[in-house]
Amino acid sequence: MNRRMVLYMLGSVVKIEALLLLLPLVTSLIYGESTSVTAFLISIAVALAIGFGMTLLAHPGSKVIYAKEGFVTVALSWVFLSLIGCLPFVISGEIPNFIDAFFETVSGFTTTGASILTDVEAMGKGMLFWRSFTHWVGGMGVLVFVMAIIPSFSERSIHLLRAEVPGPVVGKLVPKIKQTARILYIIYVVITLVEVILLLLGGMPVFDSLVHAFGTAGTGGFGIKADSIGSYNSYLQWVITIFMLIFGVNFNLYYFILIKKAKLAFKSTELWFYLGIVAFSIICITANIFPLYDSISETIKHAAFQVAGFITTTGYATADFNSWPIFSKTLLFLLMFLGGCAGSTAGGFKLSRVMMLIKNAKRELQRMLHPRSVAVVKFEGKRVDDITINSVTAYLSIYILFFCIIVFIIGFEKFDIETNITAVASCFNNIGPAFGQAAANYSEYSPFGKIILSVAMLLGRLEIYPIILTLSPSTWRKK
Amino acid sequence: MNRRMVLYMLGSVVKIEALLLLLPLVTSLIYGESTSVTAFLISIAVALAIGFGMTLLAHPGSKVIYAKEGFVTVALSWVFLSLIGCLPFVISGEIPNFIDAFFETVSGFTTTGASILTDVEAMGKGMLFWRSFTHWVGGMGVLVFVMAIIPSFSERSIHLLRAEVPGPVVGKLVPKIKQTARILYIIYVVITLVEVILLLLGGMPVFDSLVHAFGTAGTGGFGIKADSIGSYNSYLQWVITIFMLIFGVNFNLYYFILIKKAKLAFKSTELWFYLGIVAFSIICITANIFPLYDSISETIKHAAFQVAGFITTTGYATADFNSWPIFSKTLLFLLMFLGGCAGSTAGGFKLSRVMMLIKNAKRELQRMLHPRSVAVVKFEGKRVDDITINSVTAYLSIYILFFCIIVFIIGFEKFDIETNITAVASCFNNIGPAFGQAAANYSEYSPFGKIILSVAMLLGRLEIYPIILTLSPSTWRKK
Repeated sequence: MNRRMVLYMLGSVVKIEALLLLLPLVTSLIYGESTSVTAFLISIAVALAIGFGMTLLAHPGSKVIYAKEGFVTVALSWVFLSLIGCLPFVISGEIPNFIDAFFETVSGFTTTGASILTDVEAMGKGMLFWRSFTHWVGGMGVLVFVMAIIPSFSERSIHLLRAEVPGPVVGKLVPKIKQTARILYIIYVVITLVEVILLLLGGMPVFDSLVHAFGTAGTGGFGIKADSIGSYNSYLQWVITIFMLIFGVNFNLYYFILIKKAKLAFKSTELWFYLGIVAFSIICITANIFPLYDSISETIKHAAFQVAGFITTTGYATADFNSWPIFSKTLLFLLMFLGGCAGSTAGGFKLSRVMMLIKNAKRELQRMLHPRSVAVVKFEGKRVDDITINSVTAYLSIYILFFCIIVFIIGFEKFDIETNITAVASCFNNIGPAFGQAAANYSEYSPFGKIILSVAMLLGRLEIYPIILTLSPSTWRKK
Repeated sequence: MNRRMVLYMLGSVVKIEALLLLLPLVTSLIYGESTSVTAFLISIAVALAIGFGMTLLAHPGSKVIYAKEGFVTVALSWVFLSLIGCLPFVISGEIPNFIDAFFETVSGFTTTGASILTDVEAMGKGMLFWRSFTHWVGGMGVLVFVMAIIPSFSERSIHLLRAEVPGPVVGKLVPKIKQTARILYIIYVVITLVEVILLLLGGMPVFDSLVHAFGTAGTGGFGIKADSIGSYNSYLQWVITIFMLIFGVNFNLYYFILIKKAKLAFKSTELWFYLGIVAFSIICITANIFPLYDSISETIKHAAFQVAGFITTTGYATADFNSWPIFSKTLLFLLMFLGGCAGSTAGGFKLSRVMMLIKNAKRELQRMLHPRSVAVVKFEGKRVDDITINSVTAYLSIYILFFCIIVFIIGFEKFDIETNITAVASCFNNIGPAFGQAAANYSEYSPFGKIILSVAMLLGRLEIYPIILTLSPSTWRKK
């Protein structure tokens, strides 16, 4: 393995984080939060020292990276990002406990939005800004960002893109990988800005608009109020509903629209599957919770918001869904696992995988009746080869295996089974809120439980492989 | 499709059921339960009328059956068996409600052991005998029995065996299919008899020994006391623990021992995987529940009994596991899905499938690092071809899909999520008891819920495919 190149890229990521920390620093300056200013300055200094230390130490001879280097770089980058990213919280004393701060930061970068804060409204503006900004950074991916802006990355870094961007198949939009990364980020920035403007037009304060746009764009879900989005007006809630859904769509489709091939975008079967599930869920829940609310429009609004919040794995809320009838809660629980479309910022298992699994199962049924038949699985009009199908089915096995292992370990906690299972489902799929006793926040989990759930969030965001490959001794063995 | 042959085989199955009903009839006569005697006589008459009607109507021209006929025959047989099997309960008035009686009978034949009875000790002996006997019949499979005893079945009926015996790969022990079916039943009868004798030696009454041996052999779990096996002595509890585990092993291994190839049996990796999980679970639970019991031997006994009860999907109990700590409950919940070995009478997903999935996932990891590597998945020393692997992974998708659909539908019930999910897991994997509010029995579920759970039990026992293929219009379409 090209360890120097891994170290070099890690250093670059840490340096970028120092740059990103400037934004909350400015926020703290604007709001005159001197403790936070100091905390951010110290954190930036630490990040720069570590970052430059790494890149100076590791003058890579060869810049070629293979799959192995890609996975290891991505996994370690996310751990480093979180370790350094939690420093401001600890130094400022806003989250004095290191494990709590680490949990919160991992939850931010992985766009989970699970919080250990019992009183989010007591936090300073600078810290709240940083907390939500990590969602935005984590949503599209840090290494994608690094690729987009640092000139020295070779074309081989497609492996980085594959390891960081979720979904079964990651392709390049354009022949050049750097160009692809740039296009993705441009689309991301533009849609985020449009949301900020629409929120401002609805009377949301500038600060609130920014942090909520970050949370929506990354499908994260950190809010700044005790009742999440509940106290904003209906217009603002609808804007956030629609933008959550927009960020759950494969970004390739926006690229098609950008290059005036909108027809191609609307041909996407994954898009229609996604919209179909959303519509079906909204109808089911609206019918189920109708007696709880005053009007049909109010009911639809809450149903739509919660459905969008769960399927896109954002996790914002406008209603106390934990007290909804079991039917609606069960449906939301199932949506937790689906996740949005591949190539979006949403977490979860991804709809394209679900679709391929269903098609493969159909083929299997056909094969049982006609053993000699040769059936082909097609997705988005193209034939899917057996290697891709096998990688999707293998991912399902690994996904379930890790889910079960984490549920088993979290059984040590004092909560009931519903709380534990929904908490693991929520963290593993990068959603945020759970049902039962952890519905509001995760502060009651033990430090051990918080570490396990942090690992679950990282496994979920990076789709497991980078983490296990990094931990596997065979990756590090010299040939 | 050869509809006449399907009808003919259905008729044979129903006639066999008339024969099977003679045993509880004799039991009722012995205990002088006149209402039950009448009920069994009427049921036998109905079964004979329907059975002979079917076989006379359907003189099959060709006796050839293909996969399609196999699946349809198995699915319809199980539905007919249950519809006729519940008649004694309804006619005698011991379970007056038809849906309740149907639920109880499906639960019996599918070896689930989930009960709607609120006072099992109030039931007559004849009915209790029939209820437990359905476990024994359903355990090894009715069509396997039909094949073993009816001479006219052609060698093509391997498709029946494949559709009824659970597991990813069903092979013949000997070249002749009829011989294979006979060997399986002989092993089944012998081990059941050994258990009966060991229970009698421990002072268990004859009636109790028989019904509990039936329940153990079929991995069913219907008991005759309010506290399941709790009030019997430790020796009897250990005998049942060990026999539950014995019936969770692939019967092919007993055949190997029978033909003096014991070495081959002990080479089975599935066996060691099974024993490993059992030992690991017993150790974990013993450590966790130790404070609840008086002595270490008492603790181990309860841990071992419950672990064996869950992994073999029997569902007998000696302790109130619903009040155990969350860690132990979580572990038992996860064991629910595993199930025993393929080719055993246990339900669940089956360990050989789990092992193949793990091996396939490992191969996928290797492929990610070395895209050009050609890795082979081996199981029990033999190479597993890609079609088998794909059928296992496809089964996983279908298994999860149906589990989610049933959980979604059962969300209409008034119970909490823990109760609903564990009830579906319990019925779908043919275990019996669940956690939470349905821990004791299913009487509180609505008629709709009982029907859904009955379907879940049938889907689980027949491993889904026969049911969906029977319901699919393309199966019935003429070419």
